[in-house]
Amino acid sequence: MENNYVSIDTLKFLLYNVHQTEDLLSRDRFSDYDKTAIDIFLDSIKTFSDTALFPYIKDMDEKPSYFENGSIKVHPQFENIIKLGGEMGIVGLGFDYNDGGLQLPSAIFHAAYFIMEAANNHVSGYFGLTAGAANLILSFGSQKLKDIYVPNMLDLTWGGTMCLTESQAGSSLSDIKTTATPTNEDYHLINGQKIFISAGDHQFSNNFVHLVLARIKGAPSGIKGVSLFVVPKKRPDKNGELIYNSADIVGEFEKMGQKGYCTTHIVFGDNNDCRGWLVGEPNKGLSYMFQMMNEARIATGRMGTAIASAAYYASLKYANERPQGRKLNSSGQKNIEEEQTLIINHPDVKRMLFTQKAIVEGSMSLIFQTSNYSDKEITSTSQEDKEKYNLLLELLTPIAKTYPAEKGIESTSNAVQILGGYGFCFDFMPQQYYRDIRIISLYEGTTGIQSLDLLGRKITVKNGKALKLLAEEIQQTINSANNYTNLKPYATMLLENVGLVQKVISILMPHALKGNYERFLADATVFMDFLGTIVVGWQWLKTASTAQEILEKNVGNQSNAFYESKIHTMKFFYTYELIKTKGLAKTLMNNEELTISVSKEVF
Amino acid sequence: MENNYVSIDTLKFLLYNVHQTEDLLSRDRFSDYDKTAIDIFLDSIKTFSDTALFPYIKDMDEKPSYFENGSIKVHPQFENIIKLGGEMGIVGLGFDYNDGGLQLPSAIFHAAYFIMEAANNHVSGYFGLTAGAANLILSFGSQKLKDIYVPNMLDLTWGGTMCLTESQAGSSLSDIKTTATPTNEDYHLINGQKIFISAGDHQFSNNFVHLVLARIKGAPSGIKGVSLFVVPKKRPDKNGELIYNSADIVGEFEKMGQKGYCTTHIVFGDNNDCRGWLVGEPNKGLSYMFQMMNEARIATGRMGTAIASAAYYASLKYANERPQGRKLNSSGQKNIEEEQTLIINHPDVKRMLFTQKAIVEGSMSLIFQTSNYSDKEITSTSQEDKEKYNLLLELLTPIAKTYPAEKGIESTSNAVQILGGYGFCFDFMPQQYYRDIRIISLYEGTTGIQSLDLLGRKITVKNGKALKLLAEEIQQTINSANNYTNLKPYATMLLENVGLVQKVISILMPHALKGNYERFLADATVFMDFLGTIVVGWQWLKTASTAQEILEKNVGNQSNAFYESKIHTMKFFYTYELIKTKGLAKTLMNNEELTISVSKEVF
Repeated sequence: MENNYVSIDTLKFLLYNVHQTEDLLSRDRFSDYDKTAIDIFLDSIKTFSDTALFPYIKDMDEKPSYFENGSIKVHPQFENIIKLGGEMGIVGLGFDYNDGGLQLPSAIFHAAYFIMEAANNHVSGYFGLTAGAANLILSFGSQKLKDIYVPNMLDLTWGGTMCLTESQAGSSLSDIKTTATPTNEDYHLINGQKIFISAGDHQFSNNFVHLVLARIKGAPSGIKGVSLFVVPKKRPDKNGELIYNSADIVGEFEKMGQKGYCTTHIVFGDNNDCRGWLVGEPNKGLSYMFQMMNEARIATGRMGTAIASAAYYASLKYANERPQGRKLNSSGQKNIEEEQTLIINHPDVKRMLFTQKAIVEGSMSLIFQTSNYSDKEITSTSQEDKEKYNLLLELLTPIAKTYPAEKGIESTSNAVQILGGYGFCFDFMPQQYYRDIRIISLYEGTTGIQSLDLLGRKITVKNGKALKLLAEEIQQTINSANNYTNLKPYATMLLENVGLVQKVISILMPHALKGNYERFLADATVFMDFLGTIVVGWQWLKTASTAQEILEKNVGNQSNAFYESKIHTMKFFYTYELIKTKGLAKTLMNNEELTISVSKEVF
Repeated sequence: MENNYVSIDTLKFLLYNVHQTEDLLSRDRFSDYDKTAIDIFLDSIKTFSDTALFPYIKDMDEKPSYFENGSIKVHPQFENIIKLGGEMGIVGLGFDYNDGGLQLPSAIFHAAYFIMEAANNHVSGYFGLTAGAANLILSFGSQKLKDIYVPNMLDLTWGGTMCLTESQAGSSLSDIKTTATPTNEDYHLINGQKIFISAGDHQFSNNFVHLVLARIKGAPSGIKGVSLFVVPKKRPDKNGELIYNSADIVGEFEKMGQKGYCTTHIVFGDNNDCRGWLVGEPNKGLSYMFQMMNEARIATGRMGTAIASAAYYASLKYANERPQGRKLNSSGQKNIEEEQTLIINHPDVKRMLFTQKAIVEGSMSLIFQTSNYSDKEITSTSQEDKEKYNLLLELLTPIAKTYPAEKGIESTSNAVQILGGYGFCFDFMPQQYYRDIRIISLYEGTTGIQSLDLLGRKITVKNGKALKLLAEEIQQTINSANNYTNLKPYATMLLENVGLVQKVISILMPHALKGNYERFLADATVFMDFLGTIVVGWQWLKTASTAQEILEKNVGNQSNAFYESKIHTMKFFYTYELIKTKGLAKTLMNNEELTISVSKEVF
């Protein structure tokens, strides 16, 4: 297959078999859909990706977006992409019918975006941020705001953005300084600057709707004084004409990757007449934003997985076509008269391909697991179930963001390595994916921030209830796997790892209880690596167990080799990846406080 | 310090204290030098690096070398660099006085190049390859070849290259096809194409001297039929005038990093009159080339270390200047009224800095250890010592090439991460170093090739004698460390790791003895990771032990904090890095043969 950047067979196997997405379709919210309808929808996304997205990924890198005369110009293919994306309803995939959406499950939303991002990771942000901005207005905005803004965003006539960061604040949103001054009208006057605004502008949408965090004059300091505003690039006047609103693009950040996807610097209120409309109540901006942010974190992990998927298939193609070297005979020699073998036949190349496959498909499964909890939270009728799935979703979100980001770097690096010297050259794609994916661990809260969230909040919340629920979920998978003799050793290994998590937490938690939070959280990133590896190990056992069940019942619609490959890759993950957790646990349980006990002069 | 890309204090501590380079100076070959002379020399290299190299590293990335009208144009600063480098005798640093060199120890040669490469990794290859080519002519060429070529190369009037790879061969040099047809004169006619020729051309040298691997017509197949030729870009005619020699630059490979350093495609003999002069005997080309290659492998590891050093100091500077976030109080809360703290005060940022420091300084020490063996091999008078140091040098060479390459990626990735979103932007250097360093694991034999060399040759040679010698060297360090109570636990950990190496080899070796070489070598890259981590752990214990000794004897010329920081970083390495070896050992000892037992359809 020429445009091979994703395995749709694997995606559907994970979606339907491993994560039982069909079960969701019986719930009221999704009852208009059946598997056939979903398949047709995903096929249309694949066709769109094959024809409008994948063929332009390299050209977007070579012809980056750029800033000129106060606006951003993106690659000309975006004209077509924005038009088609608008027609296909991509912005509103998960929105309620009432809001003009398709009301698809989160799992299907992520599957569709995964395909598009594997084809071209420079594009989906223009859709996703518009969706996120529209979703915030729908969730918390007034009817008037909804009526004015959302319909134009749904068909991408207008784009949407999230404006959080400022140069002096970075990840510390307590420190944002953009102000909102009340007026006698229904708007505030916005003054300030925002940086790193993804998808902030382009020539193919008439207008941009910025969702801006700002402080209303006199608001409390810190995050408790942050409010959320709709600030359009151009505001509709009384006749509905769009007029200048002093939300000026003043520059673009030039980046080493995702060059087709613009990152802008916006100045609000240079003329003191930049108007913003409050969303929801004052001083609740950050909590509103976090609804979007949690979604965006899963989406970021998904994007990392998708880039790693594209790199995997690019390197697999090369490994299948490139002859080099020969197999060793029983004297450890090569027979030079033999034809060269394809490099895919070398064990070390297979190891690099398995490493990628294990990371990519394990991460895909984690994304679907997380979105499955999201769908179940939304559609559950009992409060108990809602809480359960919310806790599981909240616990997995930072992991689903971070594991694909960090391990995705390693995965794409393996893709580069398989191509040898060509891997470093612009003639082939892996080097681009290697550059593109490097942003994933920085977007939407860095790995450090995600790790503090995981250990500092998600593990401790409700006396560790989320982790207890996760352990139950994992135990179910272990029970299923124990039905199959060939999977038992791996089920045992996973069980040991669950015990190891409890042991590590029992060592760390006393620091928090004694009020020594700095010590408690010092190695949060190591904990993320540790727990992330175990959670993906769980996903692999679930995957292998599902494959084994299909093989034994002989009910698969794929070849036996397909299901056997999943079991084989699970074994690879356990033998080459999960085996690392004991070392990480030892690091976590060390008593040396090496990163706390020293002053900065040590460096 | 503005140009902070390397710590000269650490470099000198490793050179003089940890690796006792002054002892070498008492040997005949180096007896003209004392520490003062070496210090003056290194200071001059630092000044050259500060003024002529470091200020241009970013601009060379932004204005890459390019191919135009049959030749390569490099950044204009190279005019100055080539002139100064020639004047300073950089090409001949290690050469004999008789050959016009400075006869410096290998350790000092590497120290000088390390400083230059940390300042600007796009430059040193133009020096180093000229040196390597000249060295091959000096070692194996006729007096006539030496007289014609070497003096012009020593002052960089002419450049030099190594032409090995061809597109159909890649790492498999058995498969090169360039031919050499004997004539009645003293030259052969060369026909063929070579790719990935680093430093192949530029506008600031009059001529280029290519050292080309080719097959003499009728030679045996495989590596036994490969000969080495001097093929100048322009050949001197009878009057010494340089005339066209049909060695045409036909293109350049565009790369994601090291953009100032050209990578060319050369066609030899398009007019059937490309003349090459045989170096040494026919069919021995590869063994000659390997002398250079071993040097080049250490140099590549050194370059990786240097890039990681530059990235470390760039991120350290940022961490010391950037305020963001606040420390947690005993309720796990932040006091928003406090000033923001510098990010270097966050434990997770310290962890990322320590990770870099541990990798960078550990790799530096490994490079100096390796070059120390090289110096001792050359200057030893007994055959037994010569063999001992040769075996140790050969064993460490693939590790000294690979550890800095692979861990250097991780190290620079940490530098990017410390800068948050800015890490991904062209405004700051870490993203460039992250791109630049990605070539290191591909140059001069990929990580896979190095790992096969390590496990398949260096471990098995002479019934494992090299490894036995290494174990003795490590034991000496352990004995020294055991003199200090605070180092004992780490000495014990290292000793356990030496035992673990023996255990792993006892499991792997039977596969080789049974003739199952594919199985024996399947996880060679994992073995490289395993043994590399232990060897760098040894370097760290040696470093800490030296620091402790200086502290106890109170004989240091640096602050106590300097020596304490080395001990602290050793503890970090043992707690966060060396702890991984047990997991790697388990992977190596697994029985599943996961990368051998499956066909390529599994992917």
